Amino acid sequence: MIKQALLGILCGAAVLTVGILIGHYGIEKSGDSAPSWVKDVAKDVDESLIEQFLSEVNNIEIQENLRELTKVPHMATTAGDEETVKFMLKRWQDPETGLDEAWREEYKVYLSFPDPKKPNKVTVVTPSDTVLHTAREKEKAYTPDQDDPAVVQPYAAYSPAGNPKGRLVYANQGKASDYLRLNQTVDLRGTIAITRYGGAGRATKAINAAPYGVIGVLVYTDPLDINDGLMSDINETYPHSWYLPPTGVERGSFSNSYGDLLTPYLAAKEETYRIPAENITGIPPIPIQPIGFEDAYILICELGGEAAPNEWQGGFNCTYNYGGPGFKPTSAFNNSDVKLDVFNYETQINSSNVMGVIRGSVEPDRYVIYGNHRDSWVHGAIDPSSGTSVMLEITRVLGRMVKQGKWRPRRSIIFGSWGAEEFGLIGSAEYTEEYFTKLSERTVAYINVDIAVFANATLRVSGMPSMQNVIFKAAKQVSAPGVDSASVYDNWIRYFNRTSPTYGLIPNVGYLTGAGSDYAAFVHYLGIASMDMSYTYDRSKTKARIYPAYHTAYDTFDYASKFIDPGFLSHQAVARTAGNILIRLADGLVLPLNCGDYAESLETYLNTAVTLYEVQLKANNISMEPLKHAVASFRRAADHLNQVIHSSDLPNETPLKVRKINDQLMLLDRAFLNPLAFPDKYAFRHVIWASSSAGKPTFPGLADAFASAESSGQSSDWEKAHYHVSVLSQAIEGAANILADVI
Amino acid sequence: MIKQALLGILCGAAVLTVGILIGHYGIEKSGDSAPSWVKDVAKDVDESLIEQFLSEVNNIEIQENLRELTKVPHMATTAGDEETVKFMLKRWQDPETGLDEAWREEYKVYLSFPDPKKPNKVTVVTPSDTVLHTAREKEKAYTPDQDDPAVVQPYAAYSPAGNPKGRLVYANQGKASDYLRLNQTVDLRGTIAITRYGGAGRATKAINAAPYGVIGVLVYTDPLDINDGLMSDINETYPHSWYLPPTGVERGSFSNSYGDLLTPYLAAKEETYRIPAENITGIPPIPIQPIGFEDAYILICELGGEAAPNEWQGGFNCTYNYGGPGFKPTSAFNNSDVKLDVFNYETQINSSNVMGVIRGSVEPDRYVIYGNHRDSWVHGAIDPSSGTSVMLEITRVLGRMVKQGKWRPRRSIIFGSWGAEEFGLIGSAEYTEEYFTKLSERTVAYINVDIAVFANATLRVSGMPSMQNVIFKAAKQVSAPGVDSASVYDNWIRYFNRTSPTYGLIPNVGYLTGAGSDYAAFVHYLGIASMDMSYTYDRSKTKARIYPAYHTAYDTFDYASKFIDPGFLSHQAVARTAGNILIRLADGLVLPLNCGDYAESLETYLNTAVTLYEVQLKANNISMEPLKHAVASFRRAADHLNQVIHSSDLPNETPLKVRKINDQLMLLDRAFLNPLAFPDKYAFRHVIWASSSAGKPTFPGLADAFASAESSGQSSDWEKAHYHVSVLSQAIEGAANILADVI
Repeated sequence: MIKQALLGILCGAAVLTVGILIGHYGIEKSGDSAPSWVKDVAKDVDESLIEQFLSEVNNIEIQENLRELTKVPHMATTAGDEETVKFMLKRWQDPETGLDEAWREEYKVYLSFPDPKKPNKVTVVTPSDTVLHTAREKEKAYTPDQDDPAVVQPYAAYSPAGNPKGRLVYANQGKASDYLRLNQTVDLRGTIAITRYGGAGRATKAINAAPYGVIGVLVYTDPLDINDGLMSDINETYPHSWYLPPTGVERGSFSNSYGDLLTPYLAAKEETYRIPAENITGIPPIPIQPIGFEDAYILICELGGEAAPNEWQGGFNCTYNYGGPGFKPTSAFNNSDVKLDVFNYETQINSSNVMGVIRGSVEPDRYVIYGNHRDSWVHGAIDPSSGTSVMLEITRVLGRMVKQGKWRPRRSIIFGSWGAEEFGLIGSAEYTEEYFTKLSERTVAYINVDIAVFANATLRVSGMPSMQNVIFKAAKQVSAPGVDSASVYDNWIRYFNRTSPTYGLIPNVGYLTGAGSDYAAFVHYLGIASMDMSYTYDRSKTKARIYPAYHTAYDTFDYASKFIDPGFLSHQAVARTAGNILIRLADGLVLPLNCGDYAESLETYLNTAVTLYEVQLKANNISMEPLKHAVASFRRAADHLNQVIHSSDLPNETPLKVRKINDQLMLLDRAFLNPLAFPDKYAFRHVIWASSSAGKPTFPGLADAFASAESSGQSSDWEKAHYHVSVLSQAIEGAANILADVI
Repeated sequence: MIKQALLGILCGAAVLTVGILIGHYGIEKSGDSAPSWVKDVAKDVDESLIEQFLSEVNNIEIQENLRELTKVPHMATTAGDEETVKFMLKRWQDPETGLDEAWREEYKVYLSFPDPKKPNKVTVVTPSDTVLHTAREKEKAYTPDQDDPAVVQPYAAYSPAGNPKGRLVYANQGKASDYLRLNQTVDLRGTIAITRYGGAGRATKAINAAPYGVIGVLVYTDPLDINDGLMSDINETYPHSWYLPPTGVERGSFSNSYGDLLTPYLAAKEETYRIPAENITGIPPIPIQPIGFEDAYILICELGGEAAPNEWQGGFNCTYNYGGPGFKPTSAFNNSDVKLDVFNYETQINSSNVMGVIRGSVEPDRYVIYGNHRDSWVHGAIDPSSGTSVMLEITRVLGRMVKQGKWRPRRSIIFGSWGAEEFGLIGSAEYTEEYFTKLSERTVAYINVDIAVFANATLRVSGMPSMQNVIFKAAKQVSAPGVDSASVYDNWIRYFNRTSPTYGLIPNVGYLTGAGSDYAAFVHYLGIASMDMSYTYDRSKTKARIYPAYHTAYDTFDYASKFIDPGFLSHQAVARTAGNILIRLADGLVLPLNCGDYAESLETYLNTAVTLYEVQLKANNISMEPLKHAVASFRRAADHLNQVIHSSDLPNETPLKVRKINDQLMLLDRAFLNPLAFPDKYAFRHVIWASSSAGKPTFPGLADAFASAESSGQSSDWEKAHYHVSVLSQAIEGAANILADVI
């Protein structure tokens, strides 16, 4: 009986255990088991995936991308451009390495071209119209690339056509101050001014000239500014080095605006309203034409008149004179004029963006956008195809992961291959105009990699301060090319650094205050956290204004692979760093945007403003206290939000709490937009990063207004300074409100 | 043995069952049980809670709120206003029926007042300055209310001070066409014009007059327009009826803008930049003063000159003549002038908004805002205290539920008791300026209930078309006062209805195209789905322009409780309907905003535009196809989104999917904002609902541009029409993009 009883108890216990096990594991609890999406919404960045990405980014693939992209010149809307459109689509639609979807978007945009049948001419002509000298129409060929019939003649896009003829004068860089000075010595009416690139925007050199009666402008690249003084194509310049050959000419857009010039703030669709062309502002009012320094040498060294000041002297082995106006009495050109024959014409023509997307799994309605333009002036190996090659390598590696089912980002990733950037950031600007509200509401960040590699010394990054942290994190995980066991970060900090009050010595991330590439509309028009990245020079080794083949027929695969980045390891480093940032932005549970770093930048701007302006503002009854209060509010709110992020167990809380925080981080920059702040430059609405002419590292609207008020002393100008203090205070308090607890 | 075996089996089975039960219910599954928030995020509107809300809304409470609010006059920034601030704070901070939090926000705003020491005067004076008649300075007292020393003298806020004296003329309603016509008969230089309220904005009556040389303007309320012709205070007017006594005078803001006049688009803080007062536009350039019809009768019936046209004739028992200029030769006033002595002064003074909040449980970063102004001209029983009484009753019922722990809304609810609305919607406008980005990004809807009850016949609602559906749903659940067993909806449809292509006969929800109350900044500046609600007249029973005591010293508790809504059942119906809508907006899992109804309105506007404009636009080479395409895109996207909503099992899907849909619904109106669309009225940026002068039920910018182009025939005006077609097309396509699948 005892045995039986024991057996019974044992059996009973066993049956009970089986029952418990069945009950616990065998029967699905109705209603209270976790839905499958609970884990998905809590997922964070997968570090092993980032490792995989980094290891798969391949320098040879980038090299081959570049070779393909630079086979022929691909100026916007040409046959070569169309070939690159098709190439991008083929790559992004590839069943094994493509994106979820890729397509083309067209805008009908206003472009300016030289007439292939009537090439622009620059000549020296006697009073009886005998031609004494004719500038080269095309660059000299050193490789078959320059002989490609699709190489566009050097010209100044948006220069009006015309045939001005007049005495030559030398106007240095064509800055307002240059013409002012020149005009004190020389009667400029009816003259042609020759100017150097640099110092002032391209169009500005002609816009500044016209009020003095100048009727035409030449522009060239001085060897001092681009070649560290070297000039000889026998042994010093390309193909012997990266330096610009004497006949190389920088092309460019001679327009101060960005976006299609006929459809400001409207997407340039077929039927869109277009302003009359005569209402366009910011383009040359008089003909202007670029030439090579081979011809500039011949013109400048023959100029008569007084010697120009020291800081106007360039790299030629002669004195740069102002011009009599005109040439020296002793010159063979004595009494001769310079004549420009510019036959540029404007046309409305379709330009394509190529768009591609990887759909987000958890938050498809949040976008990380990565872009670069596709169009070049000629072959554009560096500008922009170095960036496009990098973008294609990133999409190849990510696309394969997606196609293999190994990965899908939390947020959607949009890739943009913009058209007609060279004419004024047109493709990206039209895109932001067409999708304005959607992009404003949903975009967490924009990454721009245009010229990926200027040179192979160091990383250089500009961006919103909130992006600094994720940039650093990514740069630390990538090894620097050519430097043993150092990271991109370690190498970077040697070249560009600053002492942060928060972190001590760190690499210096610049600010995106200009409109140098396609980030402009994202930063200044939409207020989206953005960054622009490249590998660049060792400034102790060259003073070149930019890589010497920039916008010339020498910016070719041959040039890039021999002189810019042999082996393509700098390209690879950029691809790894930018791709790493992209993945972190797309996959982070919490967006890797640090509002505390934004606070530090605002504090720095504020300190500068207080130092420079407070005494004089006070003397004009303008208090800076509201601005100080606003920056302090922002700091307090930022620190608090960071504390909430770090003290919360976000993976286990409602996904709407994470979303709330992410929206705060995403939208903080939107508060800095004010469409009224700069009525004469509406495309710049970001009151912290707008462009400024005052040249002070502080709030741009206040800096410009203060400079005007200080120089004019007029009370209406002081009122404008007061207005900008109020605009800034309201914007920064508004941003603080976004970061603060929501109610 | 069989018995034992059976017993054993039974016991075993029982033990097994116990085990299963323990295993299933007794032991928490580790890892895969649902977190507690999973149920919270899926919660939808609780219909029983709405029933409870409806049953607790009490008409007597509303009556007592009104009695308290109207004890003394409470014009903006006066001692009476401060009393109402404190009353609101006390109620919203009540530990048993208050909100989570309530506070005051102050702005320093630019207001205009009469000088209590030098009352404004209107006199008839002979050439030798003998005063023949003096208009009443204050309204006649019928109850102690009118004798309150805080009753402000009737005046025209923002009229400049001045002492113009001249011959009187009658200018009908002071419309541009009225002065044009009058000027054809009478030399208006140096005259004083008397005008009737109605037909043109208050300030406009003086702005239109000045170019003709008119030096002063009087304005009065004609008995024909307000009293259905009745005039006698012996037995016809208040206190015998709701009609205006002969000495009643409508006060008002004589400004065409909204928001603080010195700080456009900036919140009016102490240190904010202020424009010079002389730069203010949209206010009278010449003195203007309102008077009662008792005095107007004396002046108008003595006027000489030709008889004015039929449509200029009002309710007086005399012929309205143009004026000689001046009085009849037979009049005692012959050869006399009318003199205005206006001593108004402007001041910058603190005005308060009172804010209160119930924090959201699941989505605290989504706001439903409910507001009304608090300031009145005198006692303001109807305008605005009927609305404030209703708001206080809603907050009492909801506040108690919150304090008792019975309810917390999914989204945050913000209540705003705005200051200085009567001077130009100032409190609400400054609030939207200060919190612009935060409110833009987070506000799902704004509900405005200003005058809750004009009369007790029927509901009347204006709002964004997307709100129609939730308004109908709520109105069907509330019984109509005074109508047996009919709902507010059933009653409403009898008074205002239309035939919808989608639904057939439904109540007509108007559009918020003007700036009549505090919804203006929410609609036109921020693009937030908004509505404005009240109970109103049976138009078959009165032609009164508005309830007769409007903006007079007779708008008192006595008047409201005797003649507008005895028993306060219409107030109760409004509170129930508006509160029901509020709860649904705050608690709905999916926001109750129907984008398909928006599509129907756009289609109606489009059809009208095509009918009215297409032929002439085509003749000027302007295609309407892009606009048709845009509206079709919107319709397609709206139908698709509705289909996604209805075919999804949203309570069981990731809350981020619901959030995505709700963001689409919330943000669709933002796409309609374009700060450049109306450069001369920047506060109106909503291109669908902006105010228009063309008087056509279609897209306002296009309608106005078309009207200009048609009348001038100038190509630049046709270009403007083309511009507006493009602006509209881009905005509507942009809204469609918000509704479409996110990638």
